[in-house]
Amino acid sequence: MSTSTDPYTPRPEDRFSFGLWTVGWQGVDVFGPASRAPLDPIEATYRLADLGAAAVTFHDDDLVPDEAEREATLERFGKAVADTGLAVEMVTTNLFGDPVFKEGALTANDRGVRRHALAKVLRNIDLAAELGAETFVLWGGREGAEHGAGKNVKAALDRYAEGLNLLCAYVKEQGYRMRFAIEPKPNEPRGDILLPTIGHAIAFINELEHADMVGVNPEVGHEEMAGLNFAQGITQAMWHGKLFHVDLNGQHGPRFDQDLRFGAGNLRGAFWTVDALLGAGTGAAYEGFVHFDFKPPRAEAEDGVWESARACMRNYLILRKRALAFRADPEVATALAAAAVPELDVPTMAQGESLADLRSETHDLDRLRLRSVGMEALDQLAMEHLLGVR
Amino acid sequence: MSTSTDPYTPRPEDRFSFGLWTVGWQGVDVFGPASRAPLDPIEATYRLADLGAAAVTFHDDDLVPDEAEREATLERFGKAVADTGLAVEMVTTNLFGDPVFKEGALTANDRGVRRHALAKVLRNIDLAAELGAETFVLWGGREGAEHGAGKNVKAALDRYAEGLNLLCAYVKEQGYRMRFAIEPKPNEPRGDILLPTIGHAIAFINELEHADMVGVNPEVGHEEMAGLNFAQGITQAMWHGKLFHVDLNGQHGPRFDQDLRFGAGNLRGAFWTVDALLGAGTGAAYEGFVHFDFKPPRAEAEDGVWESARACMRNYLILRKRALAFRADPEVATALAAAAVPELDVPTMAQGESLADLRSETHDLDRLRLRSVGMEALDQLAMEHLLGVR
Amino acid sequence: MSTSTDPYTPRPEDRFSFGLWTVGWQGVDVFGPASRAPLDPIEATYRLADLGAAAVTFHDDDLVPDEAEREATLERFGKAVADTGLAVEMVTTNLFGDPVFKEGALTANDRGVRRHALAKVLRNIDLAAELGAETFVLWGGREGAEHGAGKNVKAALDRYAEGLNLLCAYVKEQGYRMRFAIEPKPNEPRGDILLPTIGHAIAFINELEHADMVGVNPEVGHEEMAGLNFAQGITQAMWHGKLFHVDLNGQHGPRFDQDLRFGAGNLRGAFWTVDALLGAGTGAAYEGFVHFDFKPPRAEAEDGVWESARACMRNYLILRKRALAFRADPEVATALAAAAVPELDVPTMAQGESLADLRSETHDLDRLRLRSVGMEALDQLAMEHLLGVR
Amino acid sequence: MSTSTDPYTPRPEDRFSFGLWTVGWQGVDVFGPASRAPLDPIEATYRLADLGAAAVTFHDDDLVPDEAEREATLERFGKAVADTGLAVEMVTTNLFGDPVFKEGALTANDRGVRRHALAKVLRNIDLAAELGAETFVLWGGREGAEHGAGKNVKAALDRYAEGLNLLCAYVKEQGYRMRFAIEPKPNEPRGDILLPTIGHAIAFINELEHADMVGVNPEVGHEEMAGLNFAQGITQAMWHGKLFHVDLNGQHGPRFDQDLRFGAGNLRGAFWTVDALLGAGTGAAYEGFVHFDFKPPRAEAEDGVWESARACMRNYLILRKRALAFRADPEVATALAAAAVPELDVPTMAQGESLADLRSETHDLDRLRLRSVGMEALDQLAMEHLLGVR
Repeated sequence: MSTSTDPYTPRPEDRFSFGLWTVGWQGVDVFGPASRAPLDPIEATYRLADLGAAAVTFHDDDLVPDEAEREATLERFGKAVADTGLAVEMVTTNLFGDPVFKEGALTANDRGVRRHALAKVLRNIDLAAELGAETFVLWGGREGAEHGAGKNVKAALDRYAEGLNLLCAYVKEQGYRMRFAIEPKPNEPRGDILLPTIGHAIAFINELEHADMVGVNPEVGHEEMAGLNFAQGITQAMWHGKLFHVDLNGQHGPRFDQDLRFGAGNLRGAFWTVDALLGAGTGAAYEGFVHFDFKPPRAEAEDGVWESARACMRNYLILRKRALAFRADPEVATALAAAAVPELDVPTMAQGESLADLRSETHDLDRLRLRSVGMEALDQLAMEHLLGVR
Repeated sequence: MSTSTDPYTPRPEDRFSFGLWTVGWQGVDVFGPASRAPLDPIEATYRLADLGAAAVTFHDDDLVPDEAEREATLERFGKAVADTGLAVEMVTTNLFGDPVFKEGALTANDRGVRRHALAKVLRNIDLAAELGAETFVLWGGREGAEHGAGKNVKAALDRYAEGLNLLCAYVKEQGYRMRFAIEPKPNEPRGDILLPTIGHAIAFINELEHADMVGVNPEVGHEEMAGLNFAQGITQAMWHGKLFHVDLNGQHGPRFDQDLRFGAGNLRGAFWTVDALLGAGTGAAYEGFVHFDFKPPRAEAEDGVWESARACMRNYLILRKRALAFRADPEVATALAAAAVPELDVPTMAQGESLADLRSETHDLDRLRLRSVGMEALDQLAMEHLLGVR
Repeated sequence: MSTSTDPYTPRPEDRFSFGLWTVGWQGVDVFGPASRAPLDPIEATYRLADLGAAAVTFHDDDLVPDEAEREATLERFGKAVADTGLAVEMVTTNLFGDPVFKEGALTANDRGVRRHALAKVLRNIDLAAELGAETFVLWGGREGAEHGAGKNVKAALDRYAEGLNLLCAYVKEQGYRMRFAIEPKPNEPRGDILLPTIGHAIAFINELEHADMVGVNPEVGHEEMAGLNFAQGITQAMWHGKLFHVDLNGQHGPRFDQDLRFGAGNLRGAFWTVDALLGAGTGAAYEGFVHFDFKPPRAEAEDGVWESARACMRNYLILRKRALAFRADPEVATALAAAAVPELDVPTMAQGESLADLRSETHDLDRLRLRSVGMEALDQLAMEHLLGVR
Repeated sequence: MSTSTDPYTPRPEDRFSFGLWTVGWQGVDVFGPASRAPLDPIEATYRLADLGAAAVTFHDDDLVPDEAEREATLERFGKAVADTGLAVEMVTTNLFGDPVFKEGALTANDRGVRRHALAKVLRNIDLAAELGAETFVLWGGREGAEHGAGKNVKAALDRYAEGLNLLCAYVKEQGYRMRFAIEPKPNEPRGDILLPTIGHAIAFINELEHADMVGVNPEVGHEEMAGLNFAQGITQAMWHGKLFHVDLNGQHGPRFDQDLRFGAGNLRGAFWTVDALLGAGTGAAYEGFVHFDFKPPRAEAEDGVWESARACMRNYLILRKRALAFRADPEVATALAAAAVPELDVPTMAQGESLADLRSETHDLDRLRLRSVGMEALDQLAMEHLLGVR
């Protein structure tokens, strides 16, 4: 299916990006050990390039699992990147695997742990800068608690902010061209994680010393675990100018973190996510890499790993085509107008008007109560574009 | 049980407050009509005072269901307030019941609806000011959508902000001593509501012209419908200085909005909520009224209405006593220290230290990996205080 | 789009059926009154026929809201049915709207309520038989509780079984050709409803005196509110021979009961639901009417009511075409074989084999651990058929 | 606190039981490796006895992680059991850890895997019989699928039933005094697990050849992950005579499987669970061991492991005392009567009555609509007993 003339074959300009930990996940979970052999991250890099990715990303521990091999690994990786022309668009630090972080990293009660975490991030920022990454993601998977007393949330937010302030200052001081993106998640592996949603993270960022350097990296599944609408969430993030990066995958609502390939799970949500990233309905598009953060199911052997990676990109391209067709359809324009969608761009108050004018105005409330809103008709048009029957 | 010497009998200094719509709910739901006769809001006011409430709150439509009776109703209500000494601490506007708002109010696609909504709020602000209310709540229950195309979320946020900016400017201009509190909710009655969580609302507020005049009014059930930890959420809101008001009730996680009486639903969550409002673990207390926003179950007759209202306050007082005892227990202090909770107040970097110092430091990682965190012991102490066995 | 040659235009042989209460819902919810005028049920019947439905269903109160008009209404309805050729395939009784049932109907603590409920059902069974309905649905929306002590669940199940036993005996005695279908739901409007899932209902049915006369009527949204897979659930029901009826609609996981039109919500789930009803992967098809039980969103005016009804059928037909194409695709057959799906039809033990034989056998466990399971490849084929790109 | 006169110190007659895998969990999850050293299962046995447990349970792989040590391990374990007087009340087989079971065990598409799984169970049944266990639990954690086509659910249920039939026949043939208990779970680690709830499992059991030998082993968290009420679920299981075993722990609704210690999570649910197990409101008590299946949080060191195990029992004892006091309180008896709870024991139809009698009866519907149901008052009494303020 995937010949070069196929419209769903990824090309570099699609700017698809993959975490090395995605295809590299060996299938360890709470209920069983690895089901797949380790994947050499450098091999994975070549393979992702072959599939059509434009970039890779990694946690320090993904790329350099063995510190003794650090130099040799980085050299091989540098060659792979050069050979394939892939970008290293984002780097992140693993602050959740090592049991040293079992009770938190930047917000651990233990100050030594916090200092160790900070040093680990700093070291990795240098590596990120060296590799040209312009985005540095922070996912605080262990920052949180199972119960109410073990974590002073106020102090934890103080320490979180302190950590971010130090990291921003360092990046500025070094002159790195780099921005931070906080990745929110409501729970798992901790019972309740700090900064659980896009909203909480952006609110937090506003308190930082260099708020302009920090945005969010929302993940489809993380918001949908809270029953939230992802497209709506990233549109709010863009409205704030804070969508610095994005993690696409699939999820079936409130339950464990499934990390399905993009498109699996909530397919209609995926359609609106692509539509939102394109800014097709708002005029404000996301400009960054399209990053996939999924896990090939544990049952799959290596063939399934690559198939799921391939399908993430393919599904994105299918949905992109469908979203664009939807937005280009004149019948859709008519339906949008019937639903008064463009009218929402008109300010509620006209220039120069006073509130007294507004208050003295009368409305035909009965007409407004009975007016057609045309949402179902519009949504059915979207459905039919999604399903390819128009 | 509720004699004046009973430690769980509410007193005015407890500052309990009730929405008139809570006891006034007649039991209409999607599956059936009213099960209870209308309750006269003025009678309800006297009754709530008898039960020990210190304040009442209302939507315009709760207090004045019949515009023809407006003056007479307000006069009777004024007398009730004077007779009982109750405060009118908060007022809000119903922008969700009338079908005119079926597709939204301040963010309706239809500009006439938005203007009508704004006028309705303005009129009610004047009434609120007249009655001395210092908090004005905005719950945008119909602001949202079921599907992706019918609502341009970017434009909707623009209009939402425009609306808030106009309202703030009006309050300033009138010289009213009044702050706004946005009440977030993820869904129901709309499929996805704008500003779905505490975090999203605070992030939004930061974009407003008079951000200092606007905070949040979180509701237990609304956050728990998204699987979020309420105590953690309001603590973050207090960290931002944005907990202007609070709505207490009960809920069983992600499902329909149950509006159970406070304590019912997630009881341990209620304990930590009271602890958070007291600032018992953080040193930062909530200063406002303790407001209940619940619904007596539809099955109950009028006796159940008052019993559930009584129990909201009683449960709060029981939990307050237990939370204070927990925080005063020397064994708890020992357990907190063993869990290193106070250490989180210590900045990660010492005054005058450089990042280079931090990076050159070494840690005994094996010790940190195996260290005791003492959270279960601490939480079991909290459990036993909650259950009253210590 | 919907010309008679359009493959997605419903035809009588598609056997689509609608509850009169679906298009008849006026938009009353917990947060607001009706947004639409009442719809005459007889007019609705003609209209549904025009749209391509083959049958209608109703609760007693839907068809005959006004007892005084009973005879006249039934006469008009009889004429409508005769005029249109629609079947009345199912009838049900409203045991949840009238506040008399506020604490339950067949399992109300109050014995008088139970007797009144039983009499209401009996009267409606006679009407159903008269109109030729062969399925009688029972949804016990108010059978349950918010709390633990108010309902003795053991006694409630005894009374539920007693009620069903009496109803079955009556139908047998009258010689009606009629079966009962219990509709499970986990919660809403009650906090916890008895017989919350397909499984609980089938387990219950097995205890009845005439278990063969009773099956289930599962609803997409009701199972998905519990995070359960609907296609898997109805396949288990068919495995038990208990899928007597089905309610199709759309839902976004654990939250309030959305009753979206079929296809909206979990679209991939809808695809597998159609596949399961066709028995396309199992060889065992559902033989009954395809019944839609949804609610046009409250925001819609009457045009949206009919549009959503139309779209339910249209989406079913699109998905049916896609599911059949998926199952007919030779590449899919290859992928199914690669995933060893047909091997599951082979009994684990061969005829005549002993357990001793099985225990003495050795397996190449390393090969089995590393084997390809080919699920992602297979699922991506399904995805592409669903999206119409194959 | 835990002296022998303490009413919350476990005693053998309390019949508390622990899985060796609970305290033995080393903290491996999807996001990180072990945080605790391995715990010798024999040492754990002694330790649990010291804490007051009356029994232990295990998966084959928990007790004998190293097959080479099988004989020596079993000998040491036999001695521990003899020394401590602990019962081995239940045994189960791990059919989910080894990647050979990655796509299922008794319902794997691969027939060799199914045969291997069956042989593994058989071997373990012999061991269980040898150790005197009378309950054999089957948790099919990997039986299921992420997507719709990879698993033919009908064939899977056929194979599941085949497997159970073979196992039952074997136990009968061997003359073992042993019953099977199926443990339902909706999801995690698979996307959708077969037999997802108590109800689905009991429905399935009814199709087996030796249905009387098979019951359920429900787990608090597994039902609550589906938003279901656990006390209601086990009461239905007891109504069917199918509550063969139980797994107590804690959970916060629909999200990942938290496996908190009993009491943590939904505390009010825990109270009603104990009440249901005692049969305090139904007259039908659970007779088996009180088994805890929880995981000490990964952050905890070994001290936290034992603290959480201790607290499971302690919380049960506190809740038992409170439930018994609630049921013994004369004011509660009055409130139960006011709520008409005992009336539900009265059959809806009197002996000898005809349906005609019932249909001719008239009811004062207005009185019934407005009647008090007294549920809130009753529930508040329960709340106050739970909190120890009565």
